[in-house]
Amino acid sequence: MQIAILLYPGFTALDAMGPFEVLGNLPGADTVFVAEQPGTIRNDSGKLAVLADASLAEVGSPDIVVVPGAPDTSGPVKSEAVREWLTAVDRTTTWTTSVCTGSLILAAAGLLTGRRATSHWLYLDELASYGVEPTGERVVTDGKYVTAAGVSSGIDMGLTLAGRIAGDRVAQAIQLLIEYDPQPPYDAGSPEKAPADLVAEWRARRI
Amino acid sequence: MQIAILLYPGFTALDAMGPFEVLGNLPGADTVFVAEQPGTIRNDSGKLAVLADASLAEVGSPDIVVVPGAPDTSGPVKSEAVREWLTAVDRTTTWTTSVCTGSLILAAAGLLTGRRATSHWLYLDELASYGVEPTGERVVTDGKYVTAAGVSSGIDMGLTLAGRIAGDRVAQAIQLLIEYDPQPPYDAGSPEKAPADLVAEWRARRI
Repeated sequence: MQIAILLYPGFTALDAMGPFEVLGNLPGADTVFVAEQPGTIRNDSGKLAVLADASLAEVGSPDIVVVPGAPDTSGPVKSEAVREWLTAVDRTTTWTTSVCTGSLILAAAGLLTGRRATSHWLYLDELASYGVEPTGERVVTDGKYVTAAGVSSGIDMGLTLAGRIAGDRVAQAIQLLIEYDPQPPYDAGSPEKAPADLVAEWRARRI
Repeated sequence: MQIAILLYPGFTALDAMGPFEVLGNLPGADTVFVAEQPGTIRNDSGKLAVLADASLAEVGSPDIVVVPGAPDTSGPVKSEAVREWLTAVDRTTTWTTSVCTGSLILAAAGLLTGRRATSHWLYLDELASYGVEPTGERVVTDGKYVTAAGVSSGIDMGLTLAGRIAGDRVAQAIQLLIEYDPQPPYDAGSPEKAPADLVAEWRARRI
């Protein structure tokens, strides 16, 4: 079971690493980081460099594709090579997935048209502009397309997918091994729960 | 504010990336991945390679140190270079921290002796063998030493620390931006909550 995680300059680290840690623990999982240009790819802050071990051309038929998001997805959204690769591999994937604004990249490739999907809460309008029906859910499954909300939600998506692929017991074992018993010290993880002025401040910055 | 994240062959990806994503979003944060040998360092599954941008010698006085864990920490535990670096930088850190079995590495360097600390649930006995008082809490603060439980708990630790460093509002903003509103599809994230036979199975594998 090959799991391809797409990298591109400016990706958000945790978007990629949440699903990587969870799905990579599935029995028989063979995860591979792919990019248009193999080599080290820097994240959004520039402080992390991850090696893309394979080019897009080298990964022609992954079973699962994971597309992480970024504060600025214009690079992969506009890249013909990325769009063509996503369209091509999607024909044979079992699951095509994204975290955060990774859904904008899938949508730009035309893979989410007419489907229910999600994204980072600040980008749901942009997702809708691609003819996608955005939802406020944390993990959205529409057929074989699984999209997750912002950044950390990729862990929940990974566990959801692990259960669908390998059954509840395997998914629970992974949850236990990564000790995913969240106890955030604040309750500000969604626009509904965070202080309203903080949400307004970030909405204003986005516009 | 320099935040040094220690890498070594076999580290667990999410242990490092949870705190990286959270603490890296603090105003003025300058995160750097350090290793005994700079260059690409592979994680426990071998499928992820992260570039260590700096050698231990190049990072002499970080404000915060983060030590991720691994299924096998014997490399860094036995490394004189790692032990000496940790002991040296700890003299001037504001916070010395670990995720998962990273606490075994801190303990082996003598930094947790007589202190309350935590680790991955499967390794609490081993932590105690270093003269540390293990607790079942997810994030433990004892003076400037902050240790987190298994893998995913580094996110909770990061937010706890963000609040201590920059105040509640900044920490809440980070939680909102990484949309950390966890909704695990199972409730098996700790040995108390997971099915008992699953916990027993993994305890048996560990021994």
